[in-house]
Amino acid sequence: VSRPFVVELQPVGKRVEVPAGSTVMDAARAAGVGITSVCGGQGTCGRCRVMVTAGPVGEPVDADRRAFTRPELDAGYRLACRTPVTGDLTVGLPRASLLGDQRLQVGAGGTSGEGASALAPAVRILPAPMDPPSLTDQRGDLDRLTAALRTAHGVHGVQASPAAIGQLSELARRCDWDVVALLHGRELVGVLPPGRTVAGLAVDLGTTKVAGYLIDLVTGQELAAGGVANPQIPYGEDVVSRLAHAGRAVRGAQQLAEAVRSGLDDLVGQLTERAGLQREQVAEAVVVANTAMHHLLLGLPTRQLAASPFVAATSTAVQVRAAELGIRIAPGGLVHCPPCVGGFVGADAVAMILACELDAAVGVSIGVDIGTNTEIALHDPRRPGLTATSCASGPAFEGAHIRDGMRAADGAIEAVRIGPDGAVGLTVIGGGEPVGICGSGIVDAIAELRRVGALNGRGRFALDVPGVSLGRDGLQYVLAPAQVSATGQEIAVTQTDVNEIQLAKGAVQAAITALLDATGTDPADVEEVLIAGAFGSFLNLDSALDVGLLPRLPNARYRQVGNAAGAGARGVLRSTAERARARRVAAGTGYLELTTLPGFQARFAKAMALPAPPAPTEPVAGPSGTVTHRSEPVADQPLPPSGQPVGASVVQGA
Amino acid sequence: VSRPFVVELQPVGKRVEVPAGSTVMDAARAAGVGITSVCGGQGTCGRCRVMVTAGPVGEPVDADRRAFTRPELDAGYRLACRTPVTGDLTVGLPRASLLGDQRLQVGAGGTSGEGASALAPAVRILPAPMDPPSLTDQRGDLDRLTAALRTAHGVHGVQASPAAIGQLSELARRCDWDVVALLHGRELVGVLPPGRTVAGLAVDLGTTKVAGYLIDLVTGQELAAGGVANPQIPYGEDVVSRLAHAGRAVRGAQQLAEAVRSGLDDLVGQLTERAGLQREQVAEAVVVANTAMHHLLLGLPTRQLAASPFVAATSTAVQVRAAELGIRIAPGGLVHCPPCVGGFVGADAVAMILACELDAAVGVSIGVDIGTNTEIALHDPRRPGLTATSCASGPAFEGAHIRDGMRAADGAIEAVRIGPDGAVGLTVIGGGEPVGICGSGIVDAIAELRRVGALNGRGRFALDVPGVSLGRDGLQYVLAPAQVSATGQEIAVTQTDVNEIQLAKGAVQAAITALLDATGTDPADVEEVLIAGAFGSFLNLDSALDVGLLPRLPNARYRQVGNAAGAGARGVLRSTAERARARRVAAGTGYLELTTLPGFQARFAKAMALPAPPAPTEPVAGPSGTVTHRSEPVADQPLPPSGQPVGASVVQGA
Repeated sequence: VSRPFVVELQPVGKRVEVPAGSTVMDAARAAGVGITSVCGGQGTCGRCRVMVTAGPVGEPVDADRRAFTRPELDAGYRLACRTPVTGDLTVGLPRASLLGDQRLQVGAGGTSGEGASALAPAVRILPAPMDPPSLTDQRGDLDRLTAALRTAHGVHGVQASPAAIGQLSELARRCDWDVVALLHGRELVGVLPPGRTVAGLAVDLGTTKVAGYLIDLVTGQELAAGGVANPQIPYGEDVVSRLAHAGRAVRGAQQLAEAVRSGLDDLVGQLTERAGLQREQVAEAVVVANTAMHHLLLGLPTRQLAASPFVAATSTAVQVRAAELGIRIAPGGLVHCPPCVGGFVGADAVAMILACELDAAVGVSIGVDIGTNTEIALHDPRRPGLTATSCASGPAFEGAHIRDGMRAADGAIEAVRIGPDGAVGLTVIGGGEPVGICGSGIVDAIAELRRVGALNGRGRFALDVPGVSLGRDGLQYVLAPAQVSATGQEIAVTQTDVNEIQLAKGAVQAAITALLDATGTDPADVEEVLIAGAFGSFLNLDSALDVGLLPRLPNARYRQVGNAAGAGARGVLRSTAERARARRVAAGTGYLELTTLPGFQARFAKAMALPAPPAPTEPVAGPSGTVTHRSEPVADQPLPPSGQPVGASVVQGA
Repeated sequence: VSRPFVVELQPVGKRVEVPAGSTVMDAARAAGVGITSVCGGQGTCGRCRVMVTAGPVGEPVDADRRAFTRPELDAGYRLACRTPVTGDLTVGLPRASLLGDQRLQVGAGGTSGEGASALAPAVRILPAPMDPPSLTDQRGDLDRLTAALRTAHGVHGVQASPAAIGQLSELARRCDWDVVALLHGRELVGVLPPGRTVAGLAVDLGTTKVAGYLIDLVTGQELAAGGVANPQIPYGEDVVSRLAHAGRAVRGAQQLAEAVRSGLDDLVGQLTERAGLQREQVAEAVVVANTAMHHLLLGLPTRQLAASPFVAATSTAVQVRAAELGIRIAPGGLVHCPPCVGGFVGADAVAMILACELDAAVGVSIGVDIGTNTEIALHDPRRPGLTATSCASGPAFEGAHIRDGMRAADGAIEAVRIGPDGAVGLTVIGGGEPVGICGSGIVDAIAELRRVGALNGRGRFALDVPGVSLGRDGLQYVLAPAQVSATGQEIAVTQTDVNEIQLAKGAVQAAITALLDATGTDPADVEEVLIAGAFGSFLNLDSALDVGLLPRLPNARYRQVGNAAGAGARGVLRSTAERARARRVAAGTGYLELTTLPGFQARFAKAMALPAPPAPTEPVAGPSGTVTHRSEPVADQPLPPSGQPVGASVVQGA
C-alpha cells in the first residue's frame, strides 16, 4: 500500500495529506480550497488551472494540451482535475482558479478581471526612519516623518488627520523612530513598525450578504475571506423596504447606516483576527454595493432615489475616512466606493462588469448578478459602452420568504431530483440530515415539480400528482418528512414558496428580456451569459432554464463566475488602474429604468409563468454534474415508514 | 440750541445721535464702536483714521495733514478725534481703525497684517445652475453639480463628503436646481441658495478666552465678533494643568477636546445668530491657538509635548472637517489650523507675528502676547527669521487667582491712583460701583502701592504705611470698602494677590530678558515692542514698566496692538497668501526653550522683585491717557464714613 502524499497549496499556504491516486483537484477539495470548475472534473472546461512548482509531475494529457501553451506546460501548468498526485507536491493556484470559501462563494470563478491589472494599490508603503527629537531639534513628530519621506522617497506635501498623527507620535517612540508610512496619495493613512503585513479590504456589500476579502497589498495574496449577514435585514429584506424605512422612520436612515457600518466593522474584526493582523494593518477598504446600500452606508439622502426619476445623490466614486463611518482600520484609512451607473445599478454592477471583462467582450455578452437586488449588464461590441438595468428580485433566492428556506449553509438542500417512481433525491450541503432548503434547492425543486407535472404553468400544484399533499400551509410537496429532517419538522415546497420563486424569477427574466428588447438584441446573438453572485454560482443551470429564470440558450453559453462583484472589488483594491477602468465603465454604461418602461408590468406578469418542461433526453439520474461544490449526499437514510406522504422518500440517486 | 446730529458708522451699520460739538470719535464711542487710538484723542498717534463719505466735513487740521496724503484728504479721510460733527454724517471706518467690541479687545489695534493681503479666501463661491433630472437624465445630483461647475467655471475633479452631497440633494430641489457652490480647493464645502452671504470664522483660541470673528468672505467685512470663556477652565487654569489632566485622567484628553469643541460650536451659534446667518453660511474656520490648546482641540497626543524635549505632534498646518470636531458650519467646511513654531509657541504666536508684521519690521522688534500663556517673538532684521519663546504666566492677568479678581467686564476696577493724601481713585469699566479688579487694575494698583511705599521690593506690605491693614486674608490694601462696592464686600489687594502678580510678571520679564540675551540683543537696540492680547491692550504702560512686567524702554517704543492673534487669524481666513506667509514665518522662527535654559530659574526668581519706583516727574492726576477705553469714572461716590480704613476712599481723580 502506497503511503499518502502531502500536497501544499500556494499562495493559500494549506497542506493536506491525500491517498495515492487522488488528483490535485481532490487534494484542493480535501484542503477546503475551492478551485474553479464548470465541467465537474471532466477535463473539458479547462478552468481548474494550477502550476506544479515542486514534486513529480507527469506528461501532459490531451486535456492539458488543449488548455495550455507549450511554455505553460513546460512551466508545470496542468488542469487540477486531470493531474494525479504521485508524490509530495507543491502546487500554485493562480488567482483565477481560486474559488475561495465555498459557503461565501467568494471566489472570482472564471473571471479574469482581478488578474488583468498589475498589483498597484492606492496605498504606498514607504519605510521612513526618522530623526529622534532633542532639545536642539524640537520639530514636531509629523514634521520629522514628512522630512524622512521627502529625503528617502521624494514625497512632498504629506497631509495627515489628527488620528494618524496621534498614531505616529505613539508608535514612533515605541519603534525607536523607525516606522513604515502608509500613504494614500499625499494622505498619511497610518504608520506601522517595519516588516508588518499591509492589507486592504475588499467588500461586496449586498442587500442580504456582506462578503469581505482581506488582501495583502504587497503580494496580492488573499489573507482571509468571510462574510456576515447584512445587519440591516431587520429593517427590511429588500432594497425598497429599506429605503421606505429610511424615509419613514425618524431615525430610519441613521439606524440603517449604523447597522451596516457596525457590520463592516465586525467584518474587519473577523477577517483581521483570522489573518492574525491588527486592524491598523488594514490600509484601505473598497466597498461595492448597489446604489441604495451605497447611499445608506454613506448616509447620503435616499428620498430622491426612491421615487421617479430615481436619481442617485452621487454616481461618482466617493472616498471617506473609515473612522467617519465607525469602521476601525488604519487611523487615516479611507473607504473607497467606486462609481455607480445610476438608478439602482451600483458599483457592484460596475465591479461585476470589470471582473467579467464584459466591457472587453468580443461577442454580445450579458452579465447577471442575481441577488436580492439583481443587476444585469449587456455589452454589444458593435455599440459603444454597455447598458445595464436592475430589478428587485427579492430575497427568495437567498432562502428568505420560503417557508423552510435557509441560506446556502450546512444542512441546506441544494439539489432535488424526483425519480420516475416519485422517489425524491436530495443533496444536502455538508451532508447529514437536511435542515431546510436554499435558493438553488428550491429552484431545482420547482423545475423537477414542473417536469413531473406536480406544478402547472401558472405555478399551481396539481392535486392528482403523487406527492402533492395538503399541509399546514395549504398544498405542498414534501421533500423530507419529519423523521429524516434534522429539525424534526417536515421540509416541503409550499404553494406560497412557488409563488415567491415565480415572482423572483419573473423579475429577473423580465429584466433580461426587457434589456434585450431595449437594446435590440436578438437572444440568439448572445454569445455568453455570465451568472454572478452567490446564488447564481451554485444554481443548477438546467433547472434555471427550465423554470424560466434565464433565457433558453445552449448551456455552453452560460458561465457561472462566482462572486464577480467581490472579484471586481478586489481588483479595484489591488490596482489604481482598475479604479480608472471602473470610472470609464460607469461613465460608459447606460441605465435602463424598468419601472417606467411601457409594457413592463405585462412582461413581468407573463414572465412569472413556469414554461412547459423540455422533452426528456435521458433518464434523470441524480444531481447533475453542474453541482460541483463540496456537498455530501445524505448517506443511507432509511426509507420512510409507510403512512408518510407518497413520494417523499429521501434517497440518494434513486 | 443746535439739534443733535445723526452719525452713521459703516461698515458696522450703527447710527447714533450726538450733540453738536461732538467729535466723530465721541460718536463712535457713543455707538459702542471702538476706534483704535493710542494717544487718547490728542491727535498725535494718527491711528483713528476714518473717511467721511456723506455730510459736511471741514478743512483738514494740522493733525490730519500729518496723518494723510493730499488725495486721502480729498477723499474725506480725517482723524476721528479731530473731526467735529457739524451735521448728519456717514463715516466709513477702515478695518485697521476698528477696535471692535471693547470687552473682547477683538480689534486688530494698530496692526496692519490683515489689510496687507488682498481678499482671497480659500473658499471659492461659484454660482452653479444645474440641469434638473428626468427619466432621460438620471445622473446623480453631485454629477449634475460637477458638470455645472465644469461648464460655468472650468473646475474639474470636485470631491464632496457625504454630508455635503446630502445638503446638495436637499437644497437643489428646494432651489429649483439653482445653487451657489462653496469650493475649498476641489472639495465641495457646501451649497447655498443664490444671494446668501458667505462667511468665515476666525478664532483666537486662548487658554482662558476664546475670541471669534465672523467675516464676510466677499466683502471682507466683519459681521460679528464675540467671545466665550474657554470651557476647559474647570479642568485646569493654565496650559500645564490642562496637559496634566489630559495625561492623568482616563478620559482626560477627550473631556478637554469635547469641552473646547463644544465651546467653539457655541461660538458659531452665538456669532451666526448675531449676524443673522445660518450655520451653513460659514464656509471655513481658522483657529489659532498655542500648541497645547491646538493639540487638545484636535485630539492630538500631548504626552510628548508635556515633557522634555517638548515636541509637538505636528507643527505643520492641519486641516480637519469641522464636523469631525462637532463644530457645525457648512457640511464640508474645514477648520484650518495654521502652523505652530514649536514647544508651546503655537499658531497664535505666528498670527501675532503676521498681524504685527514683525517679520517685515525694519528695526529690532519684539511682539509680546500676554495671556495665561505668554508668547514672545523677536525679530532682528540683521539676522534671518525670528526667535520666539513662551512662558506660563498664569491666569492672574485675567483676574484669576486674585482674591477680588475678575475679568475685564463691567464693574471691574481697571485703573487705580493713590493721591498724596492717600485717597484712592478708581476707574471702573462701564462706570458704577466696583465689583472686583481686573488684570490691568491690579497691575496699576501694585505699581501705585510700590510708588507710595506700601510694598517693598520683595512685594511685602509695609505695616507702617497708611492704608495697609490686616484683613481676613492677612495684610491687604483696601481699594473700595464694602459700602461702596457693588457686592457689599470690600475690594482689596492682598499679600497673596501681590505674590501672584509677581510670579506672573516675573515669568514674562524673565522670558523677555532671556530672549534678548539668547539672541544677543541689547535692550537699548529694541526699536519697537508690540504688546498684544486682551490684557496687554488695556494695560497702563507706565504701571507695567513700574512693576517690571516689561523692560524699561521709552514709552514711545511700545505699541499696544489689541488682539493681534485674532487679527492674524482673520488675515489667514481672508487670504491664502497669508497662509503661505504663515508657513514661511513658522518655518523661519526659531524656538527658545526656557525651562531647560541654564540659569533661567535664577533669572525668574530675580524678575519677581518689584523695582524701586521712578522719581516722580509730575503730580499724579488720575488715570493716565493710555487708558483709552470707554470707562466711566465712578461718579460722586461719597467719602467713606470715618472708621473705614485710612486711604481707602473712592474718589475720581482725587
